[in-house]
Amino acid sequence: MKHFTRTDIDELARIPRANLINSISGYKPANLIGTVSRSGNTNLAIFSSVVHLGADPPLLGFVQRPASGVDRHTCQNIRETGVYTINHVNTDIVEQAHYTSAKFDRDVSEFEACGLTEEYLAGFAAPFVKESRVKIGLRLVDEMPIERNGTIFIIGEVEHIFLPDEIISEEGNVDLNAVETACISGLDTYHSVRQVARLPYARPFEVPDFDR
Amino acid sequence: MKHFTRTDIDELARIPRANLINSISGYKPANLIGTVSRSGNTNLAIFSSVVHLGADPPLLGFVQRPASGVDRHTCQNIRETGVYTINHVNTDIVEQAHYTSAKFDRDVSEFEACGLTEEYLAGFAAPFVKESRVKIGLRLVDEMPIERNGTIFIIGEVEHIFLPDEIISEEGNVDLNAVETACISGLDTYHSVRQVARLPYARPFEVPDFDR
Repeated sequence: MKHFTRTDIDELARIPRANLINSISGYKPANLIGTVSRSGNTNLAIFSSVVHLGADPPLLGFVQRPASGVDRHTCQNIRETGVYTINHVNTDIVEQAHYTSAKFDRDVSEFEACGLTEEYLAGFAAPFVKESRVKIGLRLVDEMPIERNGTIFIIGEVEHIFLPDEIISEEGNVDLNAVETACISGLDTYHSVRQVARLPYARPFEVPDFDR
Repeated sequence: MKHFTRTDIDELARIPRANLINSISGYKPANLIGTVSRSGNTNLAIFSSVVHLGADPPLLGFVQRPASGVDRHTCQNIRETGVYTINHVNTDIVEQAHYTSAKFDRDVSEFEACGLTEEYLAGFAAPFVKESRVKIGLRLVDEMPIERNGTIFIIGEVEHIFLPDEIISEEGNVDLNAVETACISGLDTYHSVRQVARLPYARPFEVPDFDR
């Protein structure tokens, strides 16, 4: 068993530390966030930090790195327009999706540069990704600065969901395996996913007698 | 293509809405959070909302449901002691891990009730999960109330990491496939994960010529 203390972590070089800490939260969702500036330049960026906050109202959050650099176009565009899209990365587009993380100038659209296609649906102002199979339109609700490291937690309310008819059940369960939604570990590794178990709602008096 | 507008989502019954919105963020990490109350009662609960916030300092966040109910023992214990553990769920313990979500009384330890084993390492006050293969000890840094839905975003700094020697590379990359770390979709579905691609650091002038 390898043990890293906080001192060990702080003494790692920048790249190994980034790889290690980006790995330890477990598998992360692979999503592309689509935005457009007020002047009409589109932007697309991969994020592994989208997180469910609640269903009523339907809220999702994600983490934006410090907005000081020229490369933080997602956050700038969301502030300008109030809207954005979250699009699942599937295993067919992991390479295109990954290269959206390159630091392109603001007048370069990652859609064009990375071979993905802008799609406008239901009159929503922000661009969806045509190649994605699960797409969500959101409106900005709140920005929470995380003081400890200068990141920003961006909270949005779901306004639209688009997905194939055949992957959603009557009970609202979505079969993400069927559309090959991918997940991420660390900073650069992409994975496919297969179901191993679906379990009932857990009640204290129905817990199995686990054999210790 | 199925299209849900915000009105459609709001008109769904509670369970289908919860299933749908819990599914659309993509695959989620499967983690068990271990805590202990000031009086010594241990608690273990599954969370799918752990998110990477930054590597320097090493910070992770997670979302706690409204702390009003008697069942929010994780948050209560973290407030009392200032420390907690995050332990990866692997495919061998998905059933045990899932049943920690049942609403046990505060004097019941989910370790005992769900057949998992408390482990104390490096003098850290919060209990780790012996059956887990990647374990993190954290200290509470901040709590951010999410006003829109009454949840709380809990932020912690990593103090300890324990993992098998053979799954970490010189560059700090961690092979989560090798220890069968699981991921979650929706509220009740568990998955195993297999790598499909590892991609280089993305620079604008090195983007492949994607054939459109």
